[in-house]
Amino acid sequence: MKARVYVMLKNGVLDPQGEAVRHALGTLGFDGVQGVRQGKVIELDLADGTTEDAIAQMCEKLLANTVIESYRIEVQ
Amino acid sequence: MKARVYVMLKNGVLDPQGEAVRHALGTLGFDGVQGVRQGKVIELDLADGTTEDAIAQMCEKLLANTVIESYRIEVQ
Repeated sequence: MKARVYVMLKNGVLDPQGEAVRHALGTLGFDGVQGVRQGKVIELDLADGTTEDAIAQMCEKLLANTVIESYRIEVQ
Repeated sequence: MKARVYVMLKNGVLDPQGEAVRHALGTLGFDGVQGVRQGKVIELDLADGTTEDAIAQMCEKLLANTVIESYRIEVQ
């Protein structure tokens, strides 16, 4: 089975990487880019029957820093 | 308007970051993780009326390295 985990910085946490992308897009002539936030996608190829609980454990223990990041799990 | 861009390494391109995550999950006792690929999500806050073509241009010029990465655009 496949699962995807999306990890984003929580609102209010400064995102310098996103800010750099926003600035670069402006420099390249793309107007109207008001904000950019950058996060991670992690595609997992798992043994069949892995529970969403187990994936949440992976997020809590390794994939996301839950102090500053939130995560969303999508099982396919 | 908001748009999301997902950037992933193309199949066949080595993903050392994903490989490191796979190994770390195994070390933490999560069995059955057969493969991990890691990519980027970029959330864009754009002026209303920005076309998907314009977003594709942003991907081609800045957000993705199309030699080794593929991208997917999701307008919300």
